[in-house]
Amino acid sequence: MRNTVRAAALSALLVSTAVSAAPPQGSGTAWDIVADLTTEIGQRLDGSPREAAARDWAVQRLNALGFKNVHIETFPIVGFVRGAETAQLTGPYPQQLHITALGNSVPTPKGGLTAEMVYFPSLDALKAAPAGSLNGKIAFIDNQMLPNQDGSGYGPYGNARRQGPAVAASKGAVGAVIRSAGTDHNRDPHTGGTNFPAGGQAIPSGAVSAPDADLIARIAAKGKPVTMQLVLEGHPQANMPSGNVIADLPGRDLSLPPVLVACHLDSWDLGTGAIDNAAGCGIVTAAALRAQQDGRPLRTIRVLWAGSEELGGFGGEAYAKAHANEPHALAMESDFGADRVWRVDFNLAPANKPLRDKVAAALAPMGIVVGERKAGGGTDVEPVIAAQKLAVIDLNQDGTRYFDLHHTPDDTLDKVDPVQLEQNVAVWAAVLTVVANEPGAIAGQGE
Amino acid sequence: MRNTVRAAALSALLVSTAVSAAPPQGSGTAWDIVADLTTEIGQRLDGSPREAAARDWAVQRLNALGFKNVHIETFPIVGFVRGAETAQLTGPYPQQLHITALGNSVPTPKGGLTAEMVYFPSLDALKAAPAGSLNGKIAFIDNQMLPNQDGSGYGPYGNARRQGPAVAASKGAVGAVIRSAGTDHNRDPHTGGTNFPAGGQAIPSGAVSAPDADLIARIAAKGKPVTMQLVLEGHPQANMPSGNVIADLPGRDLSLPPVLVACHLDSWDLGTGAIDNAAGCGIVTAAALRAQQDGRPLRTIRVLWAGSEELGGFGGEAYAKAHANEPHALAMESDFGADRVWRVDFNLAPANKPLRDKVAAALAPMGIVVGERKAGGGTDVEPVIAAQKLAVIDLNQDGTRYFDLHHTPDDTLDKVDPVQLEQNVAVWAAVLTVVANEPGAIAGQGE
Repeated sequence: MRNTVRAAALSALLVSTAVSAAPPQGSGTAWDIVADLTTEIGQRLDGSPREAAARDWAVQRLNALGFKNVHIETFPIVGFVRGAETAQLTGPYPQQLHITALGNSVPTPKGGLTAEMVYFPSLDALKAAPAGSLNGKIAFIDNQMLPNQDGSGYGPYGNARRQGPAVAASKGAVGAVIRSAGTDHNRDPHTGGTNFPAGGQAIPSGAVSAPDADLIARIAAKGKPVTMQLVLEGHPQANMPSGNVIADLPGRDLSLPPVLVACHLDSWDLGTGAIDNAAGCGIVTAAALRAQQDGRPLRTIRVLWAGSEELGGFGGEAYAKAHANEPHALAMESDFGADRVWRVDFNLAPANKPLRDKVAAALAPMGIVVGERKAGGGTDVEPVIAAQKLAVIDLNQDGTRYFDLHHTPDDTLDKVDPVQLEQNVAVWAAVLTVVANEPGAIAGQGE
Repeated sequence: MRNTVRAAALSALLVSTAVSAAPPQGSGTAWDIVADLTTEIGQRLDGSPREAAARDWAVQRLNALGFKNVHIETFPIVGFVRGAETAQLTGPYPQQLHITALGNSVPTPKGGLTAEMVYFPSLDALKAAPAGSLNGKIAFIDNQMLPNQDGSGYGPYGNARRQGPAVAASKGAVGAVIRSAGTDHNRDPHTGGTNFPAGGQAIPSGAVSAPDADLIARIAAKGKPVTMQLVLEGHPQANMPSGNVIADLPGRDLSLPPVLVACHLDSWDLGTGAIDNAAGCGIVTAAALRAQQDGRPLRTIRVLWAGSEELGGFGGEAYAKAHANEPHALAMESDFGADRVWRVDFNLAPANKPLRDKVAAALAPMGIVVGERKAGGGTDVEPVIAAQKLAVIDLNQDGTRYFDLHHTPDDTLDKVDPVQLEQNVAVWAAVLTVVANEPGAIAGQGE
């Protein structure tokens, strides 16, 4: 439609439907962190200058908020530098595709790569392909992910992204393209890391958007040979600088091990990293401050804004290594967007049942149910949890729409609902108030 | 989040959540037209080789469906050739923007254009800027469009796109960027035509996505100077070939003027033109065929798949000119997506009140309300309606989500709901059955 409304009706409408151009706004410490980090820094890909700028921004912000011992702990990573990325079907029908390279992809040859495409409806179908059957070809893996509240679909569906390119390469493929590991129907592909085992062949690897994958599936179903041209110039780069930002709110008894709360500061580069994971940093930081509201807690609360989570959980590993000799009481992480918390899971030693009951009692009036899963924390705290057999509490967020946005250009501030963000802060603050005032020993349940 | 689900839980989930990779399918003539046109041709920008391919495809399809006198009527247009298009804020914060050039934009200088950006919350604010006040600057116009059911917001909000760049140029601006005329929050900008009056200065002009516009608004609100770099290489090109595809279902009485039903075959190039406007071609064509179901109607039903609607309504003008000496009975157009028809409007001479009552009676059981607006047809029939003072019936579709998708990469087949598409066909067929069997004279109400 070009314009079916006639000019005569327009001036009246213009008056009656005029709205403020100002975007909807939230308020409070969590919102301010998410809004300012996405606005003043934006994307902050692992190892990039923007991630470094984000670290400096974080130090300034955490100091301004009254945190102590605010500092950066640096570490080098093998990063990923994005380049030009385009794809098209050249036969049987010319169609432009929307593609993005996966982290750890290697670049296509100069001038791009054109090859016959072989369609696989699933990762299992690809695994079943005979050795050598993909020589010189591009594998397309069409796993369609559906949304669910707890995000558990990301494990199995995400495997097409994590493992698919390496499996395709092992059968001779010269390129791999997947249906995005996502639940939306926008034309924006989802990036994310893929893994090539040491000694295996790395190949150019990308993800197309869901509508593009639908198109490929329809064309493949016609049974004619499909040819694809790929230009994916992104490439790994060794020895890039990354780092963690660490800050404390000292407790009354500095001899007690601290409570560690984490998020990650880095983001994929396509969006501005609002839900993944500026929101998590806003939530844990605002909640730590709010836990001081009725007096300084007994234990120190340490905030970890980890670096380089996306490409391999490098920040969490670096933290566990650098702090191996410091005992911790309990670890938690917020890294699943900004939508409401609906469930709590625990990993607490049997002796800590009273603590568990206290936390559950504090959360029940907030509508939070107690789950039966063993809490795991998140990528940025898993290494220290494993090394020290730490206690863990997971505050599970509603993930129904998380994978509509995850790792896409659509991960922007407007997707954060300030009301739900604030619910997260309130729930986290309730838990931290209990946990940071626990005088007795706190431990995980072990294996 | 990278992967918070542990591998142990995955294999069970993989089995239980596996779904078919096949996209949801519709059926029937309308669906087949939309699916096949978007799959086998895809984008078909005015004047482009893909629009020419679409014409050949259309002739083949309409012949296969049993239409008579299927032919192409060609005409030349001033088209638009898209080129590279990128934009970024270079200060105060480096941010990559998602931009697309507007039709009729002229290209930026070699190497791009970097200039200070001036923020205007609305087109009216831009109009109020003093002459010369934008010398050497880029104007940003931040009109935020909200959805409504009848699409009437597109008139006023779309004016920022249609007029904004010319107004900015008249005040000295060297570039113009608008918030997309759209209602979604995806990171995909909406293209569309802008107009530079003859004798006025044409400048590079683009639209950014809503999240990018939000970002610019937030940064502009901080009061620091904002600088923007634009690369918009798209440019107008004269003398490109376009054409209309015309086909008849001959009536029993060839002396009676035909009923003209229209859609447009061209599309913007960012998506595959599913809702705008393959759906319209599917609807009017399937409905014309279905109107034959209970016997050949009295009057000929003529189908017009117009070319080059998007850039200037060229197909409708060419049709009116080429067929100026053939009388027509009544004209209708479907060009507002694929969602359900909810209202009917008329433009019928007082003498045709019985016909109006018959149509309304046929539609009442289908849940269609009678509106009070004077029916206008659509861009592709407006010229012949005006020239011949034709009768018109508008079948208004629900436009609540139309401007989420309109002129974006997201205009793809998955956005078409086969059930709602089929409702359109049924409603259109009911109207055509009445109208094409009307023996008496049919005329519009005139001015």
